[in-house]
Amino acid sequence: MSVPLKKPIEEPHVGDVDVTMRMIGANARAAARILATIGAIEKERAIRAIAQAVRAATPAILAANGEDVTEAEKAGATAAFLDRLKLDEKRVIAMADGIDTIAALPDPIGTVMSAWDRPNGMRIERVRVPLGVIGIIYESRPNVTADAGALGLKAGNAVILRGGSDSFRSSRAIHAAIAAGLSGAGIPETAIQLVPTRDRYAVGLMLTGLDGAIDVLVPRGGKELVARVQTEARLPVFAHLDGNCHVYVDKAADPAMAQSIVLNSKMRRTGVCGAAETLLIDRDAAPILLLPLVRMLIDAGCEVRGDRNVQAADPRVKRATDEDWCTEYLDAIIAVKLVDGVDEAIAHVERYGSHHTDAIVTADGAAAEKFLGRVDSAIVLHNASTQFADGGEFGFGAEIGIATGRLHARGPVGVEQLTTFKYRVHGSGQTRP
Amino acid sequence: MSVPLKKPIEEPHVGDVDVTMRMIGANARAAARILATIGAIEKERAIRAIAQAVRAATPAILAANGEDVTEAEKAGATAAFLDRLKLDEKRVIAMADGIDTIAALPDPIGTVMSAWDRPNGMRIERVRVPLGVIGIIYESRPNVTADAGALGLKAGNAVILRGGSDSFRSSRAIHAAIAAGLSGAGIPETAIQLVPTRDRYAVGLMLTGLDGAIDVLVPRGGKELVARVQTEARLPVFAHLDGNCHVYVDKAADPAMAQSIVLNSKMRRTGVCGAAETLLIDRDAAPILLLPLVRMLIDAGCEVRGDRNVQAADPRVKRATDEDWCTEYLDAIIAVKLVDGVDEAIAHVERYGSHHTDAIVTADGAAAEKFLGRVDSAIVLHNASTQFADGGEFGFGAEIGIATGRLHARGPVGVEQLTTFKYRVHGSGQTRP
Repeated sequence: MSVPLKKPIEEPHVGDVDVTMRMIGANARAAARILATIGAIEKERAIRAIAQAVRAATPAILAANGEDVTEAEKAGATAAFLDRLKLDEKRVIAMADGIDTIAALPDPIGTVMSAWDRPNGMRIERVRVPLGVIGIIYESRPNVTADAGALGLKAGNAVILRGGSDSFRSSRAIHAAIAAGLSGAGIPETAIQLVPTRDRYAVGLMLTGLDGAIDVLVPRGGKELVARVQTEARLPVFAHLDGNCHVYVDKAADPAMAQSIVLNSKMRRTGVCGAAETLLIDRDAAPILLLPLVRMLIDAGCEVRGDRNVQAADPRVKRATDEDWCTEYLDAIIAVKLVDGVDEAIAHVERYGSHHTDAIVTADGAAAEKFLGRVDSAIVLHNASTQFADGGEFGFGAEIGIATGRLHARGPVGVEQLTTFKYRVHGSGQTRP
Repeated sequence: MSVPLKKPIEEPHVGDVDVTMRMIGANARAAARILATIGAIEKERAIRAIAQAVRAATPAILAANGEDVTEAEKAGATAAFLDRLKLDEKRVIAMADGIDTIAALPDPIGTVMSAWDRPNGMRIERVRVPLGVIGIIYESRPNVTADAGALGLKAGNAVILRGGSDSFRSSRAIHAAIAAGLSGAGIPETAIQLVPTRDRYAVGLMLTGLDGAIDVLVPRGGKELVARVQTEARLPVFAHLDGNCHVYVDKAADPAMAQSIVLNSKMRRTGVCGAAETLLIDRDAAPILLLPLVRMLIDAGCEVRGDRNVQAADPRVKRATDEDWCTEYLDAIIAVKLVDGVDEAIAHVERYGSHHTDAIVTADGAAAEKFLGRVDSAIVLHNASTQFADGGEFGFGAEIGIATGRLHARGPVGVEQLTTFKYRVHGSGQTRP
């Protein structure tokens, strides 16, 4: 959501947006070349310096954030929007601690991913290197400024950040701290740049790649933003689209485990992309499991929409339409359907799912194997909650989102997914016959 | 199927191109779902059946190819073009043998790439799976029909082939054999489809992704084709752009090794993307190496264009302009420049290179390490010829091109690069706190 602006905000250093953005692109490319040669210890030190600078800048960050919040309140922003936007001392400290967590991650750069010898004596190594320049376009969560900047830097990349208009002042204050940290650590400030204008035209320029200066774009925000970036971008995008996640409860499911996994998958947090949106129940398990599961969900405050069979179980169940099977509610609503075993469950997920995260609950190893093998999603789980779809829960330390595309990054995008590789070939004079 | 064709070429099954292409997309998506569940042995058997069917169809393929060649000759095609287009029995047999080589490659699908345990007892596996549907747009090399189809299938993908107009009949005959092979092996014929029209509008539709049916596009052909695909595509592309490759001869180079690597890098085959286009010579090595290298190249029939210092060495050296440093000649021409050691060599490659393949010749391990570390190219070599930039030479068995992008595939695109991965999570009832 975007809040209408009363009067144009001051944008002191921006003249011509084209010129500014081109310069940002060139700066980032130059910084990326330097970052690719910087060692693990230096990078870790710089990221810790950023965390420290953010802590030190708490008053300035809170003052800037206060102005953003005041403006958003005047514009009639919702409570949920304000909650995402608003910072307090605790949140700033958590942000700085998050940066320190990223600093402590193992450095992925330089790792030999594989190596082999050729019959002619050449040795070939596949070595991890930075991606280059990452453009991050995000909405009004000011903490992304710090998270995304630090994660990109950890992987040896230069980062161009374009934050939401509504958190413009907050992002600018956080970015000033980042720049101070970088500079203090002897790293070029251009390693992490913030687009210094709210002008939407700047986003359009980023979508063209700034004359090849940007290697990949990462949109973080609502569906509208992600869809715009994916439709208009002229360069690769790590997009995070729908998370229409399913839990399938098989006839061989342990009833207590089914209940706790369904409840957690749906209700732990309803607004996250890994939240379950559809529950599929094996028809053979229905006599024992349908009623307890439906009651449990309704008792927990979840609206249940079901097919005819599910409606028959409890009068409070609403009728599900075809649209329900396609919907990512991100709310305390779930669609419930009976299916004829694992095969129909798989077919349903393939037809309506979004290839994000899907789970099966069963004690039958063969059914689990079939589900994990045939459901074509980034994450498939056996006997675990869909809410584990998270970089931290995967042990990645931090993430920049969950990619729903199939190329390069799929699933949680952590520091490793922000790298690429090159081949280093060691010869002793070999020529090709 | 040797049908004598008069012009205009009949396109029997194509009515509305939109409808046809949409159907091809839907067929491919459905085939991909089936292919993802097919075992290694079945896939290998199907690919061998294709090779056998191609051998059996030799007369039909040669007849169709003869018609393509006649048409191209009438249209005044160059000798080089006709050579690429023309098939004979030996080439068809080589094509079939190439398919058998692909059949024999290790199956990448299902490999556990990494696996780890979480503190809560969950086990996470990262498992290799097919990419899905690959669209291949190529120019008039009929053998790509067979190569690309078989390689895509080996990785468990459905393939949509759109061949060059000039080899339309040849591709159709080869594809008929592929379809026969697939069908005989019990695999859906839609696993490898050929766009049944020369209409360029069909390419435009592929560039939109056919309603999300295509996961990645691979253009194979000249710069114009690749540029069109990269500019207009609304989906990921494995693009093979310029190969402006460099050899840097360091002061610590062994003179004999330098000569043989330079000669091989430039002259083994001048038309391949891994051919060297610029030779950089350390100024400290010039007194000993410049003249022999320049004479050797000229004696081998290579035109040498150099800076002032290089011109001074031999009167036959032409003057290099700034454009020469950026040019992929793909011909017996080389640009030669003196540089101040490895640092200036790296700076030159970064300024003018195309991030494809670059080599250093030196006995100095530190200089080699610096070059391999700082030159940001898909392939960097120490004491070996740039002409090793090839999937076969890397041990990949077969390749579909050399990707110059940074994401997903970089360098030779073999069967492994045509896969992606998913996460399989094995739990025992875990829920997220």
